[in-house]
Amino acid sequence: MFDEMWGAIEHLGRDDRTRGYLRDAWSPADLELRLWFEQEAARRGLGTVQDRNGNLWAWWGDPSARPGVVTGSHLDSVRQGGAFDGPLGVVSAFAALDLLRARDFRPARPLGIACFTDEEGARFGVPCIGSRLLTGVLDPDRARSLTDDEGDSLAEVLRRAGRDPRELGRDEETLRHIGVFVELHVEQGRDLIHRDAPVGVASAIWPHGRWRFDFHGQANHAGTTRLADRDDPMLPFARTVLHARQAAERDGGVVATFGRTRVSPNNANAVPGLVSAWLDARGGDEDAVRALVAEVTEFSGAEVTVESWTPLVDFDTALRERIAAVAGDAPVLATGAGHDAGILASAGVPSAMVFVRNPTGISHSPEEHAERADCHAGVAALAAVLEDLCGN
Amino acid sequence: MFDEMWGAIEHLGRDDRTRGYLRDAWSPADLELRLWFEQEAARRGLGTVQDRNGNLWAWWGDPSARPGVVTGSHLDSVRQGGAFDGPLGVVSAFAALDLLRARDFRPARPLGIACFTDEEGARFGVPCIGSRLLTGVLDPDRARSLTDDEGDSLAEVLRRAGRDPRELGRDEETLRHIGVFVELHVEQGRDLIHRDAPVGVASAIWPHGRWRFDFHGQANHAGTTRLADRDDPMLPFARTVLHARQAAERDGGVVATFGRTRVSPNNANAVPGLVSAWLDARGGDEDAVRALVAEVTEFSGAEVTVESWTPLVDFDTALRERIAAVAGDAPVLATGAGHDAGILASAGVPSAMVFVRNPTGISHSPEEHAERADCHAGVAALAAVLEDLCGN
Repeated sequence: MFDEMWGAIEHLGRDDRTRGYLRDAWSPADLELRLWFEQEAARRGLGTVQDRNGNLWAWWGDPSARPGVVTGSHLDSVRQGGAFDGPLGVVSAFAALDLLRARDFRPARPLGIACFTDEEGARFGVPCIGSRLLTGVLDPDRARSLTDDEGDSLAEVLRRAGRDPRELGRDEETLRHIGVFVELHVEQGRDLIHRDAPVGVASAIWPHGRWRFDFHGQANHAGTTRLADRDDPMLPFARTVLHARQAAERDGGVVATFGRTRVSPNNANAVPGLVSAWLDARGGDEDAVRALVAEVTEFSGAEVTVESWTPLVDFDTALRERIAAVAGDAPVLATGAGHDAGILASAGVPSAMVFVRNPTGISHSPEEHAERADCHAGVAALAAVLEDLCGN
Repeated sequence: MFDEMWGAIEHLGRDDRTRGYLRDAWSPADLELRLWFEQEAARRGLGTVQDRNGNLWAWWGDPSARPGVVTGSHLDSVRQGGAFDGPLGVVSAFAALDLLRARDFRPARPLGIACFTDEEGARFGVPCIGSRLLTGVLDPDRARSLTDDEGDSLAEVLRRAGRDPRELGRDEETLRHIGVFVELHVEQGRDLIHRDAPVGVASAIWPHGRWRFDFHGQANHAGTTRLADRDDPMLPFARTVLHARQAAERDGGVVATFGRTRVSPNNANAVPGLVSAWLDARGGDEDAVRALVAEVTEFSGAEVTVESWTPLVDFDTALRERIAAVAGDAPVLATGAGHDAGILASAGVPSAMVFVRNPTGISHSPEEHAERADCHAGVAALAAVLEDLCGN
């Protein structure tokens, strides 16, 4: 079943020139993927509930009677991302359920499959919008007013997708249904390669955040404006890129990245009037991350806005040890990547993550990969974990 | 008449948030402006001919009998540009013709008003596409295959606008019609402020060009990829921006600008796989410009492509002196900005330029401005010049 499901969605939102994916939240590709989710659920006799924040839930059993065991991930992607980040967790969830049914397993607790909306934040700049709204970490007024590159607000985009943006916000009823959440995800580093294991379990998610730096200048003609008369924001931006890298190297335990920029007006023959650039910073130690961002902010002279901040997530120790044991003594590792499981864990929902080996460690790129045998191993491990957690 | 015409086009393609203009070649706003041109010509009893390359020509008199005197400019803009760069020359051309007719002037030679297509190169990266194709400086195969940000080729865009892209190329018949070309343009520096004159005449256009720098790297996850494992193209790009500025400062007679970038995939949470950036370099001395670009290329380690190169344009001395005298002893000044008049001059067409004072010198920005009284002075000067050139 895994292979068929994978084949059915592989082409959705793929840029055939680059082989990268364009699956922005609420884009036509994302809407197709959400429909595919409902169809897979229906094929298994499960109805799909869409919660107030647009997350999808397919339940085997009734979670209003007793909180259930939930697995799943997300279906949106970063721009020009890979096929695995997100969809691997959703496809594996359905495939694990199939394995359990093939064994005539009858869960003692409800089993849910979830698809969180807009995990990557590619469109509106804030990652994990669906789980942040669900848990109340993201203010619904702020969410509604977030805008995409076209200047459209999330509220408008939701209305166009037939949803009521006034419904956004912390959703107690949905939260009550989640007894425990297990997210399977492709690994985004090379730890499992070094450990020679197809599957691992998460110990923690590094504290991480995203800051927008606005470098203001004066747009002007690139041919007729003397160097001395220029106020060119590309120069402090360039100095800040190099400074952030040096600061991260000096610290040793923090990574800092400027991976996104927006230059205005972005004409080859004009000095820009504004350069906006996004700093992503993460590390094992929260104070070290904050110190780096403060130093880079001070150095830059830019107007700096916090777009998101996620403190250290330490996954429930008993739960992760239980899962690691059931998953065949899987190694336990920390990650620098944010996930919906981290948002839920921070909100007090017992949560865990299962990682599937990535041969190159490359992620957020068309080269992101997992061998099919490792995907199948991930499904088997997830089925064993769900069987254990739903068994009593 | 000037004020009415100005009022009729002022809103076309304007971004009401920024007050900047978005008048890409062949965009809906550009097509409306082209239609406006035809209507203004028709209102004066003149037909409009569209040449093989999409440039517009409105003739008073028959240029196939005797080459005429042509004035005009362009109607497209840089992105988020000002209202004057281009349209001032076209509106002033019609207004000058009105002045001549009001005086019952009968030209002894045909008088033409021209609108060149895609002067700015905002959409396809190459400036002065219309005049470069007309004169044969730009290879039509290369032109047809240029692509915009959507990946659409110029050939496709022309077809959508109802034109046949196979017609592109050097156009002897149209060139034979142009006896002399005079382009009126807003000044893009502050020379006329310093000289306290509303109108000036061009002596020369600096040699200038545009180079695309492609910095290749490896797209990857911004949280999970260790600094040591990264190949982040944002770093050499940032170093090159700073190096280019230093090299220009050292030379003293050259300006160098990185005003346009394209980052791929441009995700806040991904190390980029590719940063493309455009270097614009100009100066009084051709060898100095070439030396700077060679040095920056060497330093960058990037893959560098020449997008355009225009050698020094020295406008016809006798013509510019005649024009300066007729325009009330207007001062003569050099400019760092490229223009269609420069392309025609380089191709052997006697050409000249009239500049209208710009109080701040700012151009390619919403703040670009010319006082209305100076615009009227420009129209009067242009009418005097046309009267002189068409007089016999």
